[in-house]
Amino acid sequence: MTALTLAAAKTIIDAAFAKGVELGLRPLGVSVLDAGGHLVAFQRQDGASFLRPQMSAGKAYGAVAIGMGGRRLEAFAKDRPHLMAGISDVSGSKILSVVGGVLIRDGAGTILGAVGISGDSSENDEAAAIAGIEAAGFTADPG
Amino acid sequence: MTALTLAAAKTIIDAAFAKGVELGLRPLGVSVLDAGGHLVAFQRQDGASFLRPQMSAGKAYGAVAIGMGGRRLEAFAKDRPHLMAGISDVSGSKILSVVGGVLIRDGAGTILGAVGISGDSSENDEAAAIAGIEAAGFTADPG
Amino acid sequence: MTALTLAAAKTIIDAAFAKGVELGLRPLGVSVLDAGGHLVAFQRQDGASFLRPQMSAGKAYGAVAIGMGGRRLEAFAKDRPHLMAGISDVSGSKILSVVGGVLIRDGAGTILGAVGISGDSSENDEAAAIAGIEAAGFTADPG
Amino acid sequence: MTALTLAAAKTIIDAAFAKGVELGLRPLGVSVLDAGGHLVAFQRQDGASFLRPQMSAGKAYGAVAIGMGGRRLEAFAKDRPHLMAGISDVSGSKILSVVGGVLIRDGAGTILGAVGISGDSSENDEAAAIAGIEAAGFTADPG
Repeated sequence: MTALTLAAAKTIIDAAFAKGVELGLRPLGVSVLDAGGHLVAFQRQDGASFLRPQMSAGKAYGAVAIGMGGRRLEAFAKDRPHLMAGISDVSGSKILSVVGGVLIRDGAGTILGAVGISGDSSENDEAAAIAGIEAAGFTADPG
Repeated sequence: MTALTLAAAKTIIDAAFAKGVELGLRPLGVSVLDAGGHLVAFQRQDGASFLRPQMSAGKAYGAVAIGMGGRRLEAFAKDRPHLMAGISDVSGSKILSVVGGVLIRDGAGTILGAVGISGDSSENDEAAAIAGIEAAGFTADPG
Repeated sequence: MTALTLAAAKTIIDAAFAKGVELGLRPLGVSVLDAGGHLVAFQRQDGASFLRPQMSAGKAYGAVAIGMGGRRLEAFAKDRPHLMAGISDVSGSKILSVVGGVLIRDGAGTILGAVGISGDSSENDEAAAIAGIEAAGFTADPG
Repeated sequence: MTALTLAAAKTIIDAAFAKGVELGLRPLGVSVLDAGGHLVAFQRQDGASFLRPQMSAGKAYGAVAIGMGGRRLEAFAKDRPHLMAGISDVSGSKILSVVGGVLIRDGAGTILGAVGISGDSSENDEAAAIAGIEAAGFTADPG
């Protein structure tokens, strides 16, 4: 298994912010987690509200903890809300099951971690996460 | 009351994994809890995501804590979500009320513990749990 | 990084129990965690009290979360109790900083996970953990 | 009040890592918090254990939440451990009251935030934090 390095995490964040500029997004918070769900790097742009660390990390944590991207997590949450509420409960309330949490996969499909972004619409957050992951040479799996 | 031995728990896990192979399931996490809701044994197959310990234990815990299998728990959760959310809260957020938590009963119907499985669809998780419990000579009660 | 497989975890637990028989130890609970601090396997011997899952996992979690074995953790806790209490707090109360949590290292010294054992004296718990890790072909680092 | 910008936070982290290289420190985790105690940026160097996000943030949080640097916090914790344990409790278990949390002050002495570092000895962690804060043109207050 390739480890997710800090250098890669910084590349992901820089490229996600560049995508935000390109799309004219509001200020973002970006969390990059490793395969164990632990924070490698976080940055919050000036003007982003203060819960963005937890919100972005919650999106990424849900993806990597369960092994599916935010799109599938959100579909599950809509279809079986008691299921996702229960999963959040047993996780210690660390999961935000919405679009914007994107798995980082290597060329062989192995999950290296996840990126979570919060600040604009869920779809735009996701677009920035995908741009970041691809800029670092990995495959983005939004679910 | 017959106690649930570690030997029985290991038989349950081995048979659940064998069922997973037979059905071609994704990697599973299996928790076996005793009648007090305490973990006797857990195993996570290679490639199963890292929240499987909590998810599988949450299914089993809900079953044995409330005395009904995951099918009835999930029906309750759908019908009265505030009830199940409250029960989870008062449990210390230890309950996942979905299909896949199966009570272990002896010949007299006494509850000896519960098995919770997480990794594939809820129905497949449940099928593996039932196979495991029956392989150990007990009666499976999925709710 | 070599992943810690379920097969290796089971070898560790079997050998730890064999050491317990050899030394005449009381019933044990053994947790094997991966490098991200997530449970791979747990077994509780018949007669071991019901908090052994949390106690054994707490020993292993502290070791792998901080990157030092239980001996060093316990020395820290004795020397600067406010430090270890604070670390436990920020970890979400998941750490038991005592002898009996042992790091699993590969030949290059990389941390693959940790074993925590609870059931007998801390020193005997540790001896069983070391025996288990070595039986699986890894290097035990008790701190 | 001058806000602590992301640019300043990144300068702090880069300079702290440079100090780590200069002093030959082990891999570090660095958290930069604003005056409201909320994370602006975090980076974990390759090889740093996975609890460094919480440990570094806990040092910085204690400093900025109480308005004194880690040296004074640790002295308090040693003198009146029940006081600091209670403060940690009411904070939601977010405080690590040890050397290595350093307040960021502007020229007028106003607290702009705090830096927390974890990875090497507390004294070395603190030296890296001070170097980072000064490199960004602020005054470091270690307590």
